[in-house]
Amino acid sequence: MSSSFGQAFRIHTFGESHGGGVGVIIDGCPPRIPLEPADIQRDLDRRRPGQSDIVTPRKESDTARILSGVADGVTLGTPIAILVRNEDQRPGSYDEMATKYRPSHADFTYDAKFGVRALSGGGRASARETIGRVAASAVARRVLAVLAPDIEVLSWVGAIHDIVADVDPSRVTADDIEANPVRTPDPETAERMIARIKEVRADGNSIGGTVEGLIRGCPPGLGEPVFDKLEAELARAMMSLPATKGFEVGSGFAGTRMTGREHNDPFRMVDGKVRTTSNRSGGIQGGISNGEDILFRVGFKPTATIMSSQETVTSAGEDTELKGKGRHDACVLPRAVPMVDAMALLVVTDHLLRQRGQCGGFPAPELGSVRQETV
Amino acid sequence: MSSSFGQAFRIHTFGESHGGGVGVIIDGCPPRIPLEPADIQRDLDRRRPGQSDIVTPRKESDTARILSGVADGVTLGTPIAILVRNEDQRPGSYDEMATKYRPSHADFTYDAKFGVRALSGGGRASARETIGRVAASAVARRVLAVLAPDIEVLSWVGAIHDIVADVDPSRVTADDIEANPVRTPDPETAERMIARIKEVRADGNSIGGTVEGLIRGCPPGLGEPVFDKLEAELARAMMSLPATKGFEVGSGFAGTRMTGREHNDPFRMVDGKVRTTSNRSGGIQGGISNGEDILFRVGFKPTATIMSSQETVTSAGEDTELKGKGRHDACVLPRAVPMVDAMALLVVTDHLLRQRGQCGGFPAPELGSVRQETV
Amino acid sequence: MSSSFGQAFRIHTFGESHGGGVGVIIDGCPPRIPLEPADIQRDLDRRRPGQSDIVTPRKESDTARILSGVADGVTLGTPIAILVRNEDQRPGSYDEMATKYRPSHADFTYDAKFGVRALSGGGRASARETIGRVAASAVARRVLAVLAPDIEVLSWVGAIHDIVADVDPSRVTADDIEANPVRTPDPETAERMIARIKEVRADGNSIGGTVEGLIRGCPPGLGEPVFDKLEAELARAMMSLPATKGFEVGSGFAGTRMTGREHNDPFRMVDGKVRTTSNRSGGIQGGISNGEDILFRVGFKPTATIMSSQETVTSAGEDTELKGKGRHDACVLPRAVPMVDAMALLVVTDHLLRQRGQCGGFPAPELGSVRQETV
Amino acid sequence: MSSSFGQAFRIHTFGESHGGGVGVIIDGCPPRIPLEPADIQRDLDRRRPGQSDIVTPRKESDTARILSGVADGVTLGTPIAILVRNEDQRPGSYDEMATKYRPSHADFTYDAKFGVRALSGGGRASARETIGRVAASAVARRVLAVLAPDIEVLSWVGAIHDIVADVDPSRVTADDIEANPVRTPDPETAERMIARIKEVRADGNSIGGTVEGLIRGCPPGLGEPVFDKLEAELARAMMSLPATKGFEVGSGFAGTRMTGREHNDPFRMVDGKVRTTSNRSGGIQGGISNGEDILFRVGFKPTATIMSSQETVTSAGEDTELKGKGRHDACVLPRAVPMVDAMALLVVTDHLLRQRGQCGGFPAPELGSVRQETV
Repeated sequence: MSSSFGQAFRIHTFGESHGGGVGVIIDGCPPRIPLEPADIQRDLDRRRPGQSDIVTPRKESDTARILSGVADGVTLGTPIAILVRNEDQRPGSYDEMATKYRPSHADFTYDAKFGVRALSGGGRASARETIGRVAASAVARRVLAVLAPDIEVLSWVGAIHDIVADVDPSRVTADDIEANPVRTPDPETAERMIARIKEVRADGNSIGGTVEGLIRGCPPGLGEPVFDKLEAELARAMMSLPATKGFEVGSGFAGTRMTGREHNDPFRMVDGKVRTTSNRSGGIQGGISNGEDILFRVGFKPTATIMSSQETVTSAGEDTELKGKGRHDACVLPRAVPMVDAMALLVVTDHLLRQRGQCGGFPAPELGSVRQETV
Repeated sequence: MSSSFGQAFRIHTFGESHGGGVGVIIDGCPPRIPLEPADIQRDLDRRRPGQSDIVTPRKESDTARILSGVADGVTLGTPIAILVRNEDQRPGSYDEMATKYRPSHADFTYDAKFGVRALSGGGRASARETIGRVAASAVARRVLAVLAPDIEVLSWVGAIHDIVADVDPSRVTADDIEANPVRTPDPETAERMIARIKEVRADGNSIGGTVEGLIRGCPPGLGEPVFDKLEAELARAMMSLPATKGFEVGSGFAGTRMTGREHNDPFRMVDGKVRTTSNRSGGIQGGISNGEDILFRVGFKPTATIMSSQETVTSAGEDTELKGKGRHDACVLPRAVPMVDAMALLVVTDHLLRQRGQCGGFPAPELGSVRQETV
Repeated sequence: MSSSFGQAFRIHTFGESHGGGVGVIIDGCPPRIPLEPADIQRDLDRRRPGQSDIVTPRKESDTARILSGVADGVTLGTPIAILVRNEDQRPGSYDEMATKYRPSHADFTYDAKFGVRALSGGGRASARETIGRVAASAVARRVLAVLAPDIEVLSWVGAIHDIVADVDPSRVTADDIEANPVRTPDPETAERMIARIKEVRADGNSIGGTVEGLIRGCPPGLGEPVFDKLEAELARAMMSLPATKGFEVGSGFAGTRMTGREHNDPFRMVDGKVRTTSNRSGGIQGGISNGEDILFRVGFKPTATIMSSQETVTSAGEDTELKGKGRHDACVLPRAVPMVDAMALLVVTDHLLRQRGQCGGFPAPELGSVRQETV
Repeated sequence: MSSSFGQAFRIHTFGESHGGGVGVIIDGCPPRIPLEPADIQRDLDRRRPGQSDIVTPRKESDTARILSGVADGVTLGTPIAILVRNEDQRPGSYDEMATKYRPSHADFTYDAKFGVRALSGGGRASARETIGRVAASAVARRVLAVLAPDIEVLSWVGAIHDIVADVDPSRVTADDIEANPVRTPDPETAERMIARIKEVRADGNSIGGTVEGLIRGCPPGLGEPVFDKLEAELARAMMSLPATKGFEVGSGFAGTRMTGREHNDPFRMVDGKVRTTSNRSGGIQGGISNGEDILFRVGFKPTATIMSSQETVTSAGEDTELKGKGRHDACVLPRAVPMVDAMALLVVTDHLLRQRGQCGGFPAPELGSVRQETV
């Protein structure tokens, strides 16, 4: 269904940008996982607007309340419902948008699909919808901490507009990423990115960029053959985020311009484990993790809301013009980082439980051939 | 589940490259759709090896048999099972591969996941697995012909290695694509591509490239908010194909280097319909089709099987070397085209039925605002 | 998943008897269905404790709040989240139960499954969990009112302990059912049932009974062959309610003692429609509705909470005794009626949308053979 | 979907009674489970017509072929496809039935739903459809033999028409059941049942009865709260079998006439395990197994095909008469036994894998309170 994600660790999100609130139900969470509201708040705070002077100044505390599924600080194995109430509702600021389709937004397509739409705030197409995802991913993070503590999920801004960061994925840390408001672990480039964002914002314009994602310490064996390949699941996860235009794994599109001889990753035994000496596969082979770093890249378009006058039509079918208003990010990339983290955490946790259910462990216990210890 | 795809028009595939056969069950197909075995054979023949001198010479007739769900030339609404028996089994040619992990194949990861694998032919990771998808898509094609005859799904080779075709998506036809064995609707570039493939094959090497996909005549309103956005579904569908490394929709990664002012697609009324005057959205806004051409691009890595000696390890955990053998494509791109077609057809048909179920038609009937006729 | 029900009209419930609240997300609801909070409150009020002197005196207002998916009094097609906060929390009254497994409750099995449980109030096994189902069914009721207004779902108490009501399903009305607190449309028997409940309660004991369900005006064609047969879906739905022990459809177990000659339902044309002259099939043939009344019966065991001293064990594994406390119904039947209504409404609405998605209408439009109008 | 069953151990069946064949795909099967074609054939042979003089004399060898998912005698973890070809096709014998709706069959409802149907043999409504279920259950049986060897699934005929067998479920063995063709572990009553079946058949009439099911050695902790309660899953499973009219678990409908004091099952510690001293719960409490025998009963109506002249209508909407022809069972009960076994095996295996995925074992490892060893 539209608002469900995952099979074993399954989430269902709800909520419009304006209305009673947004949130999520997590079904299938393992029992007895330590979980405090602060675990969820921490991740929500990274996603929240108003954190720095390069994102939207909208003020929302985004306080999460756990409604069910947790008692005495541990999960019960039953559905965990998390609610974040909406606070800063000013539907008035969206009046004109109610009757004019904002270019490159979802106003027209929601009308075409449903014949009706929430007339303020973008409804389910609002970035606010991602709160439920991030809250669920905070729970996934706690599950991983218990079941597979070696797994570390990180993502960062790889490029803003045409400014590209210089990052060595094998060395990047969470602290490096959080060290600047643009969330790129390359301090010098970060300064240039911040300047560009401010410049573009001052011009009433917007820009996009790329986020790079990394799953470290993933045991071999996660993912599935055929339709639920790990890269397919990650692709769906990332392309379901607002404003995404592209997804690459490992060598990505650049890999299409290499020969097989250049591209193949040789295997070698290292410390008794099967390893590859290069990683153009991006940690996934045949849809299944091979124990190397899982690396991927997500492209985000420039924010559709701009302060220029634009050609558009009314919902009554008349040509007109629209000048953007409201409080929006000139560049979503810094806030997209925790969203990319969230989706990667959800994918990995789901496949960890699926692997345990079908095969009894990660990797499969009692391997018939190479005996591979959990990385 | 791993081998299921779609929600309303739902397929389940099965079969290894070696064994009794490969095939598919289609569940949820509308009843009374005219369907003949030849409809399926036509699409399977496009996917089949041995069609030209630039693909693998393996000889397989790939004859489809409809086992159920069809009577007197029409679908019954019950599960349609289609079986293609395996014919050309020479497990002997894979002997060495049984004990040595082929670099950048799925041999090691299948062992890590399952603790066992089909010792010949790549199991479910074989391109032969896509037969079930293509057979199912031939049924989807017939469903569209009845329910939404304006929809046309086309894809073609956009690049082989560093050779890029010059194609105008708005004018490309199925005949243009089939006019040359490389399946690129740019005859001159096709010649250079063919030469490059032959050259690389003579060298025992391999190359990759990109396939471009187009869904024309799609009514507005298909797709869903949030997780089942049309681009997310297409991304998952394409990234589940063997050898894929990247997916883009509309402006794609290039769009990340534009400003919002450059990137937004203005709306205009044209012939009483809401249209955009540019199409950087790639026909999808907020996860839902807007009636414009849906355009996407898929990156395929160079074939992992090469004729060079490569470093690898045995399944017993010893470093060793492997020289590729067997009959494989030096470039999968020409045969990837019908696979991309297949996945696009499956996604569109599934969302068409979902839209009819939830909203009663495509687009939603009795629109409250703009009355949008089916494009 | 455990807390999801339905495929096209799909609900996800959450919440324990004690904690922040209980509720539901409905995904896949058709857009533009008129829906007011009062529509939901009306059904919740029927399920609520404290309505009469034969049910638990626990006071809970059970006020529903619609958090999302509805604007300006109509559904948006996006997830509808409904929350009912918990109010009357007295965990103290459950203290002894926290360490002693209540006989024929779910305390021990939750511990065995999850290794943890909500130590007060029964967690997800509480009847309070059904609030989410009833709230969702109120939305389903509104959907039916628009899409298939001839459908009427009714259920009533058929028996309490060994007291059996005399009811003609073809004539029963909603008012007849609500005319007495025991919800049986047989006023004289109702008096005897009420007396029996009061007598049993005074004794600290409990009793069970049966609820009979009816779906009137269901068009032919709903349901599916094989696993999702309409009777299988109803059986799962009803047997998922707390305290249920049995399910019958049409002739039920009594039908197993008839011969085929006695049991078969002859067809006759009546007013241009295919009808049966008897209805031992209970309105379903081969898993699919035939247009006659759908009739079923659900058995509920006596409430497990009694005021006697009972043998049991502690969660530490010691034999002990437990005397029931707390505020419970001596007979759940009157309050089970809206729960049975709810599950029947959910099943019918789900299959209505599934039928529209796959076959284009209910019944299938343009029948090749008998042209059957919607009943 | 209509033809899918299970979540973790998931099956998809296909095939009409006439056509290329019937079969099943099993997705999610654990890898490295020993499996031979003979394992499947053994169970199919129990279901096959023509085994004794009290079932239909139709001759079908029902030979299963494993098409995929198994190599060198073990499962691969990938989809297992099993095909049984149709052999004994005599569509001629069904000619009259093609235009006249057989009373209490699915002919009319399939037409109403799909607007088309397989004009011979009953399509998916044929008992032949259960071949796929039985084949899949044979695989489930092998999975249980490896993962939970203490589990034993048995079922038997409890009643034929008004003749009721006297069976002690705690002592019944597979050999007792197979000792007579009617499959009831009460030799004397079996003789009377056989005589009754022959008598009814000679009269061109038919009879029904009940099948009783038992799951022995089930560890506590299987099943789920709320919608996927173990009894709800069993109810759906059984009510999806052709000709079923009712389902009971534990005390069943008889339990509705007891008081709570009579009905509750006291807990006692026995050999260090939590046990109940009676079993009116039928081995399931709150939807989750408690380690006691799981006991249930399924009611089957008399076979709809009888040799009398019956009133019916034509598919063109004219009143007419039909005299049954073809080769059918006068009583399906003996052949229903392996079908009930099959569905119980599928439910238990699915929940075993679900429990392992979510909670890490059966029961949950490291219980916080009572430490319960696997029974």
